[in-house]
Amino acid sequence: MNNIQNLLKIDIPIILASKSPRRKNLLQMLGLDFKIIVADVDESIDTSLLPEKYCTLLSENKAKKVAELIDYEALIISADTIVVLDGKIINKPESKSEAFEMLNSLSDNTHQVFTGITLLNSKSRKELTDYKLSYVSFRKLDSDEINAYIDSGSPFDKAGGYGIQDDFGAVFVKEIKGCFYNVVGLPLELLYSSIKKFQS
Amino acid sequence: MNNIQNLLKIDIPIILASKSPRRKNLLQMLGLDFKIIVADVDESIDTSLLPEKYCTLLSENKAKKVAELIDYEALIISADTIVVLDGKIINKPESKSEAFEMLNSLSDNTHQVFTGITLLNSKSRKELTDYKLSYVSFRKLDSDEINAYIDSGSPFDKAGGYGIQDDFGAVFVKEIKGCFYNVVGLPLELLYSSIKKFQS
Repeated sequence: MNNIQNLLKIDIPIILASKSPRRKNLLQMLGLDFKIIVADVDESIDTSLLPEKYCTLLSENKAKKVAELIDYEALIISADTIVVLDGKIINKPESKSEAFEMLNSLSDNTHQVFTGITLLNSKSRKELTDYKLSYVSFRKLDSDEINAYIDSGSPFDKAGGYGIQDDFGAVFVKEIKGCFYNVVGLPLELLYSSIKKFQS
Repeated sequence: MNNIQNLLKIDIPIILASKSPRRKNLLQMLGLDFKIIVADVDESIDTSLLPEKYCTLLSENKAKKVAELIDYEALIISADTIVVLDGKIINKPESKSEAFEMLNSLSDNTHQVFTGITLLNSKSRKELTDYKLSYVSFRKLDSDEINAYIDSGSPFDKAGGYGIQDDFGAVFVKEIKGCFYNVVGLPLELLYSSIKKFQS
């Protein structure tokens, strides 16, 4: 018996439209059965958009692209997570010096994490998009810590240059306010509540 | 090279004095090398103590008991986590009906999680004990959800009857304020900062 799929009354296949191993792990943790289909989406959209517009536009685009790839009815789940400091969207660092600068600017400071999520029925095209905002406060980092973290290679596939659930990046975070899993990349409570609404 | 052990200048064995698989996973995530030694500690201490007294007394007792078992120098790490609702300490549920009552009282409500941590050098007997407090807000749960969660067996080895990082208990939590890993059972940022202080 699949507890959560029964609870949510989902009787069509679930597709996660994300290549993020973190999102895959989180959906598995909930006990959902799903498969992963990823489509390339142009992420070079206007970064002057409001963060909530930016992440929801990207999550919508990801879900719609995957819907075009399949010819059966499925519930598509997609998400896009961005890190925002002082109103500016921070992407993945592309060099060691950029990673240093990024982590140094997060040090002793509070930033925002937005995740847009989209649910899309590939047949009916019924859609629900929403987002979650969490606040993350870093303690003061010294350069030895930042350099050791950069040497571990962790920053380079992560928006903001750190991961809260993978490695010792966890000890940079003094406090969060909001949903922890939003910071990991998939706000589980919002996702669950949204699916419940979507199915009713 | 072990990044974090170098950073923290730890050159003696590390012992985790806990049988919790969650704490073990978290220390591994940080990249620490350690072994686990557990001693039985009488947990039937006065529950009318203040929560911060209660959890730090227990974490101290756990570390001291393990120190008695070994004859070499080691850094012992121990912790005790308690869930507090309306000033009352909530333990692990012992029956389905108790688990239901517990989760129902957390529903649509905010509770506190305290974790006491102790660092103890088994040779010098130098000790540092501290605690972390986080706030956890549940959304409103319906009885179908609570019953499905109880049927999964998850509540019975967990203070407060839920796990935030193991299963679909994660979707009960709307928001946290404080340290996420405190709620899991080991406040990583406090642990790291405490070890840094302890070593200096």
